[in-house]
Amino acid sequence: MNAKTIDLNQVYAHIDQSWDEHLKRTQKFIQQPSISATNTGIQEMAEMVAGEIRALGGEAQVMPSAGHPIVYGHVDVGAPRTVLIYGMYDVQPVEGEEWLVDPFSGDVVDLERFGPCMVSRGIMNSKGPLIGTFNAMQSLKSVAGTLPVNLKFLVEGEEELGSRSLPAFVEQHKDLLTADAAFFPFYSQDLTGKVVQWLGVKGLVFLELVCRGGDWGGPTTRDVHGMNAVWFHSPTWSLVHALSTMLSADQQHILIEDIYNEVAPPSAEDLELLETLATSFDETTQMKDYEVRRFKYNISGVDLLRRFLYEPSLNIDGLISGHPGEGMKTVLPHEARAKIDIRLVPKMDPSRVVEQVRRHLDKHGFGHIEVRQQSGYPWSKSSVSDQANTAMVETYRSLGFEPEIWPLVSGAAPFYLFTQTLGIPVAMGGLGHGGRQHSPNEYATIEGMKLYEKSAAAFVVNFAAQP
Amino acid sequence: MNAKTIDLNQVYAHIDQSWDEHLKRTQKFIQQPSISATNTGIQEMAEMVAGEIRALGGEAQVMPSAGHPIVYGHVDVGAPRTVLIYGMYDVQPVEGEEWLVDPFSGDVVDLERFGPCMVSRGIMNSKGPLIGTFNAMQSLKSVAGTLPVNLKFLVEGEEELGSRSLPAFVEQHKDLLTADAAFFPFYSQDLTGKVVQWLGVKGLVFLELVCRGGDWGGPTTRDVHGMNAVWFHSPTWSLVHALSTMLSADQQHILIEDIYNEVAPPSAEDLELLETLATSFDETTQMKDYEVRRFKYNISGVDLLRRFLYEPSLNIDGLISGHPGEGMKTVLPHEARAKIDIRLVPKMDPSRVVEQVRRHLDKHGFGHIEVRQQSGYPWSKSSVSDQANTAMVETYRSLGFEPEIWPLVSGAAPFYLFTQTLGIPVAMGGLGHGGRQHSPNEYATIEGMKLYEKSAAAFVVNFAAQP
Repeated sequence: MNAKTIDLNQVYAHIDQSWDEHLKRTQKFIQQPSISATNTGIQEMAEMVAGEIRALGGEAQVMPSAGHPIVYGHVDVGAPRTVLIYGMYDVQPVEGEEWLVDPFSGDVVDLERFGPCMVSRGIMNSKGPLIGTFNAMQSLKSVAGTLPVNLKFLVEGEEELGSRSLPAFVEQHKDLLTADAAFFPFYSQDLTGKVVQWLGVKGLVFLELVCRGGDWGGPTTRDVHGMNAVWFHSPTWSLVHALSTMLSADQQHILIEDIYNEVAPPSAEDLELLETLATSFDETTQMKDYEVRRFKYNISGVDLLRRFLYEPSLNIDGLISGHPGEGMKTVLPHEARAKIDIRLVPKMDPSRVVEQVRRHLDKHGFGHIEVRQQSGYPWSKSSVSDQANTAMVETYRSLGFEPEIWPLVSGAAPFYLFTQTLGIPVAMGGLGHGGRQHSPNEYATIEGMKLYEKSAAAFVVNFAAQP
Repeated sequence: MNAKTIDLNQVYAHIDQSWDEHLKRTQKFIQQPSISATNTGIQEMAEMVAGEIRALGGEAQVMPSAGHPIVYGHVDVGAPRTVLIYGMYDVQPVEGEEWLVDPFSGDVVDLERFGPCMVSRGIMNSKGPLIGTFNAMQSLKSVAGTLPVNLKFLVEGEEELGSRSLPAFVEQHKDLLTADAAFFPFYSQDLTGKVVQWLGVKGLVFLELVCRGGDWGGPTTRDVHGMNAVWFHSPTWSLVHALSTMLSADQQHILIEDIYNEVAPPSAEDLELLETLATSFDETTQMKDYEVRRFKYNISGVDLLRRFLYEPSLNIDGLISGHPGEGMKTVLPHEARAKIDIRLVPKMDPSRVVEQVRRHLDKHGFGHIEVRQQSGYPWSKSSVSDQANTAMVETYRSLGFEPEIWPLVSGAAPFYLFTQTLGIPVAMGGLGHGGRQHSPNEYATIEGMKLYEKSAAAFVVNFAAQP
C-alpha cells in the first residue's frame, strides 16, 4: 500500500470513535506500576509492552540487559521504510508524595486551568505517549488495513535511572535496530498550547568529586573534633578550593583548561533557526517560570539563546560534607563530596572532558581528589531537513499548529545512540500537553492525549510519504 | 574549723570503706536518663541534683531558664572561701547506637585494656564526675564534721545543646554566683594514666552561611533543572567562591581581613608552660590518635603547639546543597549552606569576628550571603598561679601524679562566664579516666572513679588551705 492513499481524516475519525476504548487501554497501561528505582512491577510492565507490539501483528521479546529488561519489537509490514520507536516503560517513584488520587489509578480529574486530565504517575513521562502511539497505530491499521512503515520498538525500563543499560544494549544489537529514523513519543505542547520541537540535546558528564584525608593531610578514617582544624588539613576546604578554580567567580566561564577547544559554533541552519526562535522566545516568561530575577548575562535574543544552547555548563548538583542537620556539631569531616554535571555541546567528547577535569585537578594541586564518573554521553543533533523532522513539522502544520523549532535544547538525553551509534536522525514529539513529571499529580490533558494519537498517526504517514 | 586540720588520709579511707554505697549512689544517678535533645528525664534529673545538694545540708533550687531548668545550690558552712561547682546534668542521646549494656543501666563491665568499668551514658560526660563530687563531699563531711569551703552549685541541663541558656542565667544571677573560684569536675587522665591539666579554653563563633537565589541571580524558591546552570547563577557556586576567599589554599592562613588584629602572643608564663609541655608532647601520638598522616605545618614542639593553641581556626563543619543521596539528580539548587566555626584565641572578640566575616563577604561581592550566628562566646584563661589551679596541681602531686599542664586547649567552652562575667578563675579536672563520650559504650574505670573522689576532696581541702 502507498502511504499517500491513506486518508488521515478517516484515521482521526476512528480515533474519536474509539476514544472510550483508547482511554481504557491507556488506563490499563498506567495502572500497572513500573518503578525502576524499587523494581516494582518492572517485569509485568515489560510483558505488557511486548503484548502491545504483538497486538499490532509484530514480534516482541523482553530481552535481558545488565539491569531491567529491554523490550525489543518489530512490526514488519513490508514497507520500504522503518521507524524505530524509542520509549521507556519505567516511571519515577511516588514514595512520600501527596497525590489528589491514587498515583496508579489512571483517574480522570477536572484540573483548574487544564480541564479534564488523567492524573497518574507516568502519564506524561512517558507511558502516556507510548500507549498513545500503540492506540494510534491500531486505528491506522484498522482504517488502512496495514501500516505505512515498518515499526521497530526499543523500550527500556531504566530511563529514570539514567538509561544505564541502554548504551551496551544498542551497541550489542545494532543489527536488530537498523531503521530510517528514530521517533521518541512525547507531549510537546507547553502550558499555552504552543508546540515546541527539539532537534538536538546536549550530552552529559556526571561526576562525583570525592576528597578524603590521606597522605596529603587531613583525617583519614573518621570525622574528628573541630578544634583540630587549626593544625590538620580539611578535605572539605580542599574540595572548596578545588571547585573554586573550576569556574570563574562571575560564573560565566569554565576555567578547566581546553574545555572550550572542541566547542563548535552553531551551523548556518542553526543560526537561521535561532533567528526565528528569537522572535517567539520570551526572556521574561523564562525568568517567571523558574522564579529567577536575572540571567547571568546582560544580553538577550539570539545572543542569549546562543549562550544557553551552544555553551557547556558546569553545575554543582550537590555538596555533601559533615553534619547536615539542624544545630551545631563542630567536626572536621574526613570526607567531602561534590556532585557535578557538565553539559556537552557539539562537538565535545565526554571522555576527553573527564580527562580535562582530572588534568585540571592535578595541575592545581588537587591530585588527591578522586573523580568518580557516574555518567557520560555525548550530545546529539538532527537537522530540520532530516525527513523525520520534516514529517513532524508537516504533521504539526496539518493539524493547525506552527511549531517553535529549537535546534538544540539544554536538556541532556542519550540520543547519540541513534544519531551517532546507529547513524539515524531522531524526531521527538507529537501534540499533547502534560506536566509535573517527577512530581505529585503528574497529568496530561484528555484533549491533548487525543491530539497526540492523531499526530502520531499523521507522523508515520507523513514520514512514509517523504520523497 | 581549719582546713589544715583535716586529715586527707582519713577521708581517703572513708571513701574506700564507703565505696559500695558510693557506687550504688553513682548508679542511681546514672540510671536516671537525662537527654536534653529529647527532653527525656530532664526535670527528674534536675530534682535529683537538687536533692544531692540538700543532702549536703545546702539549699537548692531548680530554677527556670529559657530552656531546661538550671539547678542552683548553696552549702554555706561559714568558711572564708567559696567554690562554685559548675556541672551539667544532661547527656547526649543514645538513639541508633549499639551498646554492650543498657546505656542507662550503670552496669559494671570488665573492658579489655581498662578492667572493671561503668559503661553508661553520662558516666564520663559528665554525670560521673558530678556525683563523684557529691560522694567526696559526703565523705569529707563525715570525717571532718563540716566542709573546708562553702560550695555553690551551678548545674545546667543544656550543655549538650551548646549551653544556650547559661549566659543569660549567669548574667541575671551574678549576685547569687559570687565565689572565689569555679571548679569543673572532670576525669582528666588519658589512656596512659597521664593527668592533663587545662588552664584555658578557646572561644567559639559558630555561623551558618546561607546563600539563596535573589536579586543578584539564581533560582529564588526551588531547585530547578540542572540544564539552567548555563544561564542562571548558582547559589552553590556563589557560596563555594565566597568560602574560597576566606582561607588560603594551603589552609594555613585565614584571609578574613583584620581577623588576626587582636590575636595576642602567649604570655611569658604561657611560653614557659609551653616549653615544659613540649618535653612530654608527642606529635606522633597525636597523629595516630586522629589517624592523620601529617600536620599542616612542617614544624614541631613549641612552634607547633603555639600554632595549635594560639592561632584562630576557620573550620567547615558542614556543607549542604542539592541532592545528598546516591546516584544522579541534576538540579541547580536554589540554596546552599555552610556551617563554619571560628575558634577564638586570646584576645579575640566574638562579635567583632562576626562583623569581620560580614564585612569580608560584602567586600568580596557576596553581600547576598546571609550570616546566621548560632553561637558566639570568647576564650577563657586562668593562670597556673591562680589559687584554684595551684590547689589542683598540689592535689595531683599529693596523690602521686605529675600533671601535664596546657596553658590553653583548642577545645571551646563558655568558661568566660566565670573568668570574665563573674571574674573568678576556673580549675577543671580531677583524677580518673573515661572515654567514648558522645559514642556508644561511654565508660569510666572504677579505679579512676574512686581516685576522682579522693582528688575532689583533696582539691577543696587544698584550696581552703591556700595562703
